[in-house]
Amino acid sequence: MYPDRASEPVDIPKDHPRYSSLMVRERLTELMMKGLVTPTGLISHGRGEAFDYLMNESTTQAALDAQRAAVAYLFNARNPVICVNGNAAALDAQRIIELSLETGSKIEVNIFHRTEERMGSLIEYMESCGAKNVLGRNPDSRIPGLSSYRALCTNEGIYSSDVILVPIEDGDRAEALVSMGKVVISVDLNPLSRTSRAATVSISDELSRALANMLRFAKELKNNEKEKKRILAKFSNSDNRKAAIDQICENLRSAAEDQKVGR
Amino acid sequence: MYPDRASEPVDIPKDHPRYSSLMVRERLTELMMKGLVTPTGLISHGRGEAFDYLMNESTTQAALDAQRAAVAYLFNARNPVICVNGNAAALDAQRIIELSLETGSKIEVNIFHRTEERMGSLIEYMESCGAKNVLGRNPDSRIPGLSSYRALCTNEGIYSSDVILVPIEDGDRAEALVSMGKVVISVDLNPLSRTSRAATVSISDELSRALANMLRFAKELKNNEKEKKRILAKFSNSDNRKAAIDQICENLRSAAEDQKVGR
Repeated sequence: MYPDRASEPVDIPKDHPRYSSLMVRERLTELMMKGLVTPTGLISHGRGEAFDYLMNESTTQAALDAQRAAVAYLFNARNPVICVNGNAAALDAQRIIELSLETGSKIEVNIFHRTEERMGSLIEYMESCGAKNVLGRNPDSRIPGLSSYRALCTNEGIYSSDVILVPIEDGDRAEALVSMGKVVISVDLNPLSRTSRAATVSISDELSRALANMLRFAKELKNNEKEKKRILAKFSNSDNRKAAIDQICENLRSAAEDQKVGR
Repeated sequence: MYPDRASEPVDIPKDHPRYSSLMVRERLTELMMKGLVTPTGLISHGRGEAFDYLMNESTTQAALDAQRAAVAYLFNARNPVICVNGNAAALDAQRIIELSLETGSKIEVNIFHRTEERMGSLIEYMESCGAKNVLGRNPDSRIPGLSSYRALCTNEGIYSSDVILVPIEDGDRAEALVSMGKVVISVDLNPLSRTSRAATVSISDELSRALANMLRFAKELKNNEKEKKRILAKFSNSDNRKAAIDQICENLRSAAEDQKVGR
C-alpha cells in the first residue's frame, strides 16, 4: 500500500509555502546521511528555523548593522579566520569561501563532535566547493578551557587569530574564544543564546542571507578606511542585540493581532 | 588523536545546565538511527526547543487552561483518538499510553513519512511500552484533502473519531482533520504554527509536561460532569493562544533586560 523505504526523499511541490526552507532541510538530511552533519546538528538547525520564523525570515536592520561591523573587523584583522562546522558547510560553503577570499580570511574546519573521519570529509567537502588551504586536519594547539577533542585547533589558524567568524557555534567554545581575547563574530539566529551573549559582534540572521550581505559590504568597504573606522566606532553589540530582540517581540505581537480569528 | 567513530554518543556531564534537554536529543537521535524518528523529525524537535526556551521551559497558565479543556473534550467524546508519530513516541510513549487508558482513547500511529517498515516499527515500539490494540497498520480509510500516503488512516480510529489529540502534527493534516468537523487538540510548542492556528484546542507546551498535567486533570475531572461543562463553556482558544504569545513576549523582554551587560 505504500513504498517500503525509510529514507525516501520527500516530494516537495515548488509552490509549497515553505519550499526553500524544506529544500534546506533535505540538504542537511542528505549531508547527515554522508556523515558531514550530525543528528544534533539537525536539531540545532530546527532551533534556528524557529528564530528565523520569528524574524519573518528576513534580515533585520539590527542584523545589517552587525554584518557591516563584522566585515570592518575582518578587514582590520591581522589574522582573520572563518570557522566552519558541519551545519555551516551544509548551509553555504560557497559564500563562506567567497567571503574568505574577499576579506583575506583563512578557513579552519572545527567541529564539536570531532572524529578523524568527519574532519576529513568536511575538509574534502570544502575543497570540492573550491576552497584552498583549508586548515584543521592537523591540530597542533588547544583552546584553553575546553575539554578533550573540542579544544583542538591549529596555531596557524584559530589559535593565533585575532578576529574569528564563528557561524553556528557552540556556547562553550564561543566563550572560550572570547576569553582568549579574540574579537568573536557569531552568526546565530537566537539573539539570546550563550554564543550571541558571549560574542563581540552577534549577527542574528540566517547564515546564507548573512553571508550574502557581508559579501556586498566587503565590496563596498574594501578600500574605504574612513567608513570602516566610522562603523566600528558607532557599533554597540549590546544595543544591537536589544534591537534584535525588540524586533522579534514586534513580529510576535503583530502575528498575534493578525490571528485574532479562531475559536 | 581522536576516536574514529561518527555516531559516538556524547558524554554529557550531569551538572550541564541543559542536561535533560541534551538527554532528550540523545534519545531522539538513537531512535532516528533505528528508523522510528525521521531526520526532519529532529529538525522539528529543534524548532520546538526554541519555543520552549522562549517559554522558560515551563508550563504557562495558558497551557494549563488548554490542557484542562483538552481533557474535558476527550472525556466528552464518542470516539476519542490519540495520534502517535515518531517524535511523539520518542518523547513520551509511556504517558501517551497512560492518558489513553485514563480517558478511554484509542491510539493510532499515523506518520507523515509513511513506509510499511516505519509503521511496523512504531507500532511495535508502542506495544513494547505497554500499549494494547494500536491502530494504523491496516488503513482502510483516507482523510479527505490530503495527498497519497499521508491521507491513510483507519475507520475504527482517526476516520470516525470526533475528538482527536495530535501531538506534534503537520499543519496540512491538522487543517484536514478540522475540515472533517473533528475537535482537534494539538500539542505544539509554537503557538503561531499552522497546526496551532487550525486546532480547536492548541496546547503550547512541551509534550511530556503537557501529558503529565493532562493525566493529573484526567484524575480530577473523571467523575465531575459539572466541572467538565464549566471548563468547556469558559474556554476560548483564541484568547488562550493570545495569552501564550503574550507570555513569550514578556519572557523575551525580561531576558533582554537581564542581559544589558555586553559590549
